[in-house]
Amino acid sequence: MAERSYFDWNATAPLRPQASEALLGALAASGNPSSVHAEGRAARGLIERARERVAALVGAQPANVVFTSGGTEANMLALTPAIETAGEKGPRDRLLISAIEHSSVRAGGRFPREVIEDVAVTSDGRIDLAGLARAVARSARPLVSLMLANNESGVVQPVAEAASIVHAAHGLLHVDAVQAVGRIHCDIHEMDADLVTLSAHKIGGPKGVGALVRRGDDIHFPEPLLRGGGQERGLRAGTENVAGIAAFGAAAAVAHGACAAEAARMRALRDRLESGLTAITPSAVIFGETAERLPNTTLFAVEGMKAETTVIAFDLEGIAVSSGAACSSGKVQPSHVLAAMGISPALLRGAVRVSLGWTTDEADIERFLAAWRKLASALSKGRSIAA
Amino acid sequence: MAERSYFDWNATAPLRPQASEALLGALAASGNPSSVHAEGRAARGLIERARERVAALVGAQPANVVFTSGGTEANMLALTPAIETAGEKGPRDRLLISAIEHSSVRAGGRFPREVIEDVAVTSDGRIDLAGLARAVARSARPLVSLMLANNESGVVQPVAEAASIVHAAHGLLHVDAVQAVGRIHCDIHEMDADLVTLSAHKIGGPKGVGALVRRGDDIHFPEPLLRGGGQERGLRAGTENVAGIAAFGAAAAVAHGACAAEAARMRALRDRLESGLTAITPSAVIFGETAERLPNTTLFAVEGMKAETTVIAFDLEGIAVSSGAACSSGKVQPSHVLAAMGISPALLRGAVRVSLGWTTDEADIERFLAAWRKLASALSKGRSIAA
Repeated sequence: MAERSYFDWNATAPLRPQASEALLGALAASGNPSSVHAEGRAARGLIERARERVAALVGAQPANVVFTSGGTEANMLALTPAIETAGEKGPRDRLLISAIEHSSVRAGGRFPREVIEDVAVTSDGRIDLAGLARAVARSARPLVSLMLANNESGVVQPVAEAASIVHAAHGLLHVDAVQAVGRIHCDIHEMDADLVTLSAHKIGGPKGVGALVRRGDDIHFPEPLLRGGGQERGLRAGTENVAGIAAFGAAAAVAHGACAAEAARMRALRDRLESGLTAITPSAVIFGETAERLPNTTLFAVEGMKAETTVIAFDLEGIAVSSGAACSSGKVQPSHVLAAMGISPALLRGAVRVSLGWTTDEADIERFLAAWRKLASALSKGRSIAA
Repeated sequence: MAERSYFDWNATAPLRPQASEALLGALAASGNPSSVHAEGRAARGLIERARERVAALVGAQPANVVFTSGGTEANMLALTPAIETAGEKGPRDRLLISAIEHSSVRAGGRFPREVIEDVAVTSDGRIDLAGLARAVARSARPLVSLMLANNESGVVQPVAEAASIVHAAHGLLHVDAVQAVGRIHCDIHEMDADLVTLSAHKIGGPKGVGALVRRGDDIHFPEPLLRGGGQERGLRAGTENVAGIAAFGAAAAVAHGACAAEAARMRALRDRLESGLTAITPSAVIFGETAERLPNTTLFAVEGMKAETTVIAFDLEGIAVSSGAACSSGKVQPSHVLAAMGISPALLRGAVRVSLGWTTDEADIERFLAAWRKLASALSKGRSIAA
């Protein structure tokens, strides 16, 4: 492949060198972590070390980390009516989700479709807290799922404020922090979240590993999603992905330590990208621009532009960007995130996401802007972009 | 670690060099397989190549392979009342399982507990086909789950005969082939199975990857276990474990090609181990000895011996063996497999499993026998083994 610039870190990040090293080391530990012999104990040790590191990433206790096969499985495990807390038993009667959640939350986990309700977002892409308050007031024992930052727009959600509202109404709050963790500060207790979903591959770990983190061990899952063996204290059966988990732990440790510095660096590069973008195409709209956003994400469109065409044109220029979320069956669908923000269909279908990461540098930004200058110019002449 | 001999291949196998190579290569393909840019397409290509290789391992079509996070998830996906076939709609009314299935099948997937029924096995550890026929006759539309080979005893089950009985009664047959594939011939059409579960780490791929294979695309899962994104043709949401899947594919290709030769080699070594074992302790009982067994597995006991103690004593001698299945919460429980075979509690609690693999050699066998000679002698003097 010729020199390319990767701007799709919200879809997936390359493996961090430290994660790669941990993964290779773990491949040599060939035992089954459930085995009592030396080989088994060595594999078990790798998992428990990773559990400490992933817990530290969000300020939780290691015992409250359940490793899963990724963010989707963690969301499916979390979203069940059968969550019990120390004080209360009996099923949750309603699942409230923001209108901009990831498809794995929108699927509703194990809640029947008829008890799942969307909570609107405002035009800047943040959950409408008054709407949330009204919705929880209508429920007896709601479970609320709100992402910490949106995967498409990067808009950071008012999770702590939402937690107050939810807890005042005897609800539980699940936070899908997949896109946020490692990019902004993320502490389960400061957010006052009851459950947090994490994914390894967004922070430089491998694909196929994630975790559901509980605030405390008073939160029980009497009906785990995967049942059989007693792994993960009975919460998730199946032989553990030892190498993936070890690599997740290593990535978590680096992401935790480097978060502030990486964020400052990405923000500076992102701001430069955005000022260059609007200088080239003054009509470009940057979605969620007025809200607090992740430091690495720009979601933009120009009236008349088609996202699919733009993504392919960028790809031919050696630049990987995306049209919203990558988690789809290949079908291009209009963004439910932008639709929920009230963006017009004409603008919405041109939305392109540019997301940065820790290896992004100034040369990448220059390459992006050069490509955009070329595309915007070509497309404005006789094609559909009005630059 | 000093020189050790690993005899716990049924718990997990070391990574094959070819799988390791494929895994390392895939780590460099950093895109998300759902992305349309070059990085995404490269990751997608790795998955589809692996799909062909895993399909070939069991004689299936690539499009009928659904990658999962392992055997447990594949079993959970398979065992649902909501399986539809081309001709028939409506839920399966009953889940029939052999009494010796793996814990992830015994958990019953998404069937309500009250419709799950055990089918007995005979004293040689094979399913009682007459009992199966009676059980299917009592059901309108049963799903039957029968493993190809038992993980503890290694006893091979009469799957094709069971398939005739099941299909004659309008049932569907799921085969958990996790322990058998790569060790004995395993073809989905020759077995006449409708669904087959595979696990990567038993054939030299990494832990945390598996597959559910369908006989044909007329078998539908209207309610996948993991929902959200459209990955795996809508059958399993979540960003794919690209590196793990690529390594699974590589392991499948080697296992497929080497199966017959490896089996012959393992059988010769295993037979030598067993003759040495019974020469040292003539009272040793080898379970399932009269039935067809996997070529790599010996499950044995001596009256009065305690499995936990023996496993630890072997471990101290540098030899990894196990007391039955590794998929547990660390608690030592009496084997349901041996109980179902009618073995007395006194004998059953001493059962130790010795399982071989492709790196096992004559020196390992000698080391095992030397250790057993020592243990049997020490334990027979004033301890609980009557050698």
